[in-house]
Amino acid sequence: MKIQLAQFNFTIGDLDGNYNQITNFYSKYHNSVDLVVFSELAISGYPPEDLLLKDYFLDEIEKKIESIIHLTKDKKSAILIGAPIRIEGNLFNSALLIADGAIIDIFHKKELPNYGVFDEKRYFTPANNLKNIKFKGVNLAILICEDIWHLKNAFLLKEQQVDLIIAINASPFDQNKFSDRIANVKKFNKHLQKNIIYLNQIGACDSLIFDGSSFVINKNNDIVKILLEFEEDSALIETDKKGDIAGNPIEVKISEEDRIYNALILALRDYVFKNGFKNMVLGLSGGIDSALVAAIAVDALGANNVRLIALPSKYNSNQSYIDAKKLSDNLGINLEQILIQNIVNEVENVLNPIFLDQNIDFTEENIQSRIRGLLLMAISNKFGNLLLATGNKSELAVGYATLYGDMNGAYNPLKDLYKTQIYQLSKWRNANTPKISKLSSKNIIPENIIIKEPTAELRANQKDSDSLPDYDILDQILYLIIEEKKSEEYIIAQNFDPKIVKKVIKMFYNNEFKRQQAVLGPKISKMSFDKDRRYQIGNSFRT
Amino acid sequence: MKIQLAQFNFTIGDLDGNYNQITNFYSKYHNSVDLVVFSELAISGYPPEDLLLKDYFLDEIEKKIESIIHLTKDKKSAILIGAPIRIEGNLFNSALLIADGAIIDIFHKKELPNYGVFDEKRYFTPANNLKNIKFKGVNLAILICEDIWHLKNAFLLKEQQVDLIIAINASPFDQNKFSDRIANVKKFNKHLQKNIIYLNQIGACDSLIFDGSSFVINKNNDIVKILLEFEEDSALIETDKKGDIAGNPIEVKISEEDRIYNALILALRDYVFKNGFKNMVLGLSGGIDSALVAAIAVDALGANNVRLIALPSKYNSNQSYIDAKKLSDNLGINLEQILIQNIVNEVENVLNPIFLDQNIDFTEENIQSRIRGLLLMAISNKFGNLLLATGNKSELAVGYATLYGDMNGAYNPLKDLYKTQIYQLSKWRNANTPKISKLSSKNIIPENIIIKEPTAELRANQKDSDSLPDYDILDQILYLIIEEKKSEEYIIAQNFDPKIVKKVIKMFYNNEFKRQQAVLGPKISKMSFDKDRRYQIGNSFRT
Repeated sequence: MKIQLAQFNFTIGDLDGNYNQITNFYSKYHNSVDLVVFSELAISGYPPEDLLLKDYFLDEIEKKIESIIHLTKDKKSAILIGAPIRIEGNLFNSALLIADGAIIDIFHKKELPNYGVFDEKRYFTPANNLKNIKFKGVNLAILICEDIWHLKNAFLLKEQQVDLIIAINASPFDQNKFSDRIANVKKFNKHLQKNIIYLNQIGACDSLIFDGSSFVINKNNDIVKILLEFEEDSALIETDKKGDIAGNPIEVKISEEDRIYNALILALRDYVFKNGFKNMVLGLSGGIDSALVAAIAVDALGANNVRLIALPSKYNSNQSYIDAKKLSDNLGINLEQILIQNIVNEVENVLNPIFLDQNIDFTEENIQSRIRGLLLMAISNKFGNLLLATGNKSELAVGYATLYGDMNGAYNPLKDLYKTQIYQLSKWRNANTPKISKLSSKNIIPENIIIKEPTAELRANQKDSDSLPDYDILDQILYLIIEEKKSEEYIIAQNFDPKIVKKVIKMFYNNEFKRQQAVLGPKISKMSFDKDRRYQIGNSFRT
Repeated sequence: MKIQLAQFNFTIGDLDGNYNQITNFYSKYHNSVDLVVFSELAISGYPPEDLLLKDYFLDEIEKKIESIIHLTKDKKSAILIGAPIRIEGNLFNSALLIADGAIIDIFHKKELPNYGVFDEKRYFTPANNLKNIKFKGVNLAILICEDIWHLKNAFLLKEQQVDLIIAINASPFDQNKFSDRIANVKKFNKHLQKNIIYLNQIGACDSLIFDGSSFVINKNNDIVKILLEFEEDSALIETDKKGDIAGNPIEVKISEEDRIYNALILALRDYVFKNGFKNMVLGLSGGIDSALVAAIAVDALGANNVRLIALPSKYNSNQSYIDAKKLSDNLGINLEQILIQNIVNEVENVLNPIFLDQNIDFTEENIQSRIRGLLLMAISNKFGNLLLATGNKSELAVGYATLYGDMNGAYNPLKDLYKTQIYQLSKWRNANTPKISKLSSKNIIPENIIIKEPTAELRANQKDSDSLPDYDILDQILYLIIEEKKSEEYIIAQNFDPKIVKKVIKMFYNNEFKRQQAVLGPKISKMSFDKDRRYQIGNSFRT
């Protein structure tokens, strides 16, 4: 049996666009192969979320399915494709097997993920059982994404004596997901010892990235095929009459930084395009966060589509400007400059009678950050440039970022990266060119930006370390709070200074309101600040 | 049997505080009644959300339950109380029946809501069935919230021949919820014809309001007892030996405006207190939105805790200041003023070389709004006043509000109210004093604010109607889009101008990114902009 896999980038809700991708691809192979396979919910895009609650959205999907069925009439190849299907008042997350002008069979997703970023029980009814079909002489089972993460399903399939399993997926990326997926599928197949085709989508929407990396595992539990990471791809898989797939074992080696960096490029590129923007703007401080965002932006869309603005006040050192200028030169972009001190002075003037004899505090620092945010938004509004925010995960965790100031923007590439990861990625980018980048040069981020001590430059001689523990300590504590959900007691027992732990935990909880107004950014970790985490701001659990 | 109901305001995660409320109340009645009843998840507060994923949170809850069990030793009264319960790796949303130092029985929630604002399948395992217990001679069934919204459960209870049903709830408010609840429980009891005690919590957290309004329905399906709306309350319910409850039928009459207004007061008051604030600040434009927010703020916390600031530019009429001043006088607050024009000029100065020969557009309007937002945040930062946002649902729907400008704030009382509702509520407040208000006077909002044509005053002679259809038309179209999830085709068929419908739909979808960065506000409608609605910004479904 010849099976053609389509690892595509679909757009949620773009039914015409998705339909065209699907049918154009099918037309190329409809007489040369036996089956063309598309990913989970390919027709609607994934995750469609509350679009699934609109009857007229489901009506439109049914029309597209009718057209696809019609296309297969008198063609050799069948189609296997994911779509939401209404049956007698229930909605299923299904895979349709379509051949010669008719639906041959429908497979419903059995395990509906309702944890982390997933809300599938909000929309779908689960299948009661798995089923298989004799297709072109092969006993074929179809799994949909979460189905393959539950070992009990391997035993069900073993009972059903299937030969070949096709799993269609929309499996979101995180920094360990690829190896998690491989390990899981190998575990699933350990007792089963059959052939598994694992097809994932690629592309990003909002905070979710899909990395593609579809793969095929054979009876011996060897990976015999891997499709591209972070790019659309296609592959022809051939089975023998028993459904077995031949091929030599493949080993995958790719660094974590490489994978994360390409994910960030894909996430930003898709956010810009899928929201109808053409170009971006950001403020360049001379610090490492905005430097890395500038690099990612140029990697994603090229220098012609990125605008960089320096917005110094009296507290910004000349060295910061020199560093920012050098970075801009490396990127091939003219660094624009707006001096903000006169505005700062005017704001302080009008507030003087109200502030009277109040002490100087973080208020004055926030004013500078907010003036920058205001000016960048003015440029964004006037020219239609998408504004990028540059706050990292460590800052957002402890509130070391200004709401309505440097948190302004429509997308934040660094949102799910700890400060220590920002350094790692910057060094990696200086030594490497990401495979999906539009900029081939290396050594983009000036060495001084990487080695100098971090400072927000919002008052004289300020250093991040004045108010925060060193980032390598801070990030370890934050990881235990966020990713590991550990208690204060547990974290202190890991040999951190109790005073620092208590301070960080307090800062973390007190800034929930800021995080809930923060702009979206790509999910990179197992626990990002978008749909992964759900807390009431008004909850007062602290210990 | 004597049953004491506790309709309380619990705080999510405040385990010590909730425990003290529970045990203090129990101590008052432990020898005079047979059963003291607390609401759903009383110990944790509702909804605890991802706190339920932290083991150490559940550990702490178990300690509180142990202490409560200990308290009942040698006391006459039992306790019925809601708590999350771990059993063999599963978590249940349960009701514990505790008497004389032991747990007598545990009832698990059978129906887990996972729609609208609810995510209970993210956390809990459902019960397989309902069960009952012979308690003090009465055949008693315990339901937990959603259980009573499924008619099939009435038939299960009929089979089980129960006499008395106690339903413990955390049922969130919307403007029709009280009548929906009564209608639902009467429908549930129609064939059953038993006695139902329906206990709800009161209080608010983030966007959810709980209105209390607990009630008792007897065998004849008559309401024989109602507890207070929007206030803590307690009641003694007596049954005969067969579990029957006597009493005369009660009819409830309360206007929708009355109910909504009190809900807004409760929501704001609890947001301020539960987040550790004491007072609030807001900008007063002379328009109706900020006027109503000012009134609600004073109703919630009294004039001493509300700060009002006028921030006129050259486009603000003298009449706006007169109106704002009159309102402040009515509220007993000194209106502070900050002139923003010099800052506007300075911002336009520094942007001049970048904007060059670009046309004047909404960018310049947003600059004014953002300068106001910046100044109000400076006051909020300096003095610790919680900043209130004042954008209504109609504005947030079509994007007629400035991100990082007038959308700034930690809470937005009007977030779920259409502009037409703002007028209704303002008129209602002028004629009435809400029962939970701290301000007894009426006629607070000057007549001119209500009758003048709405304008943002961001350019010369601007009127809202320059860019938007009249609010009575706009709000009807928005209601069909948001609450009714109707298609463009359907809405046009309701006799609206197709051009206007297309324009409004386009504005609505294009502003999803703003709504996702908007601050929280109380849920008043069936479809608010917080957890009720879940859409990817990058989804491109439009028709």
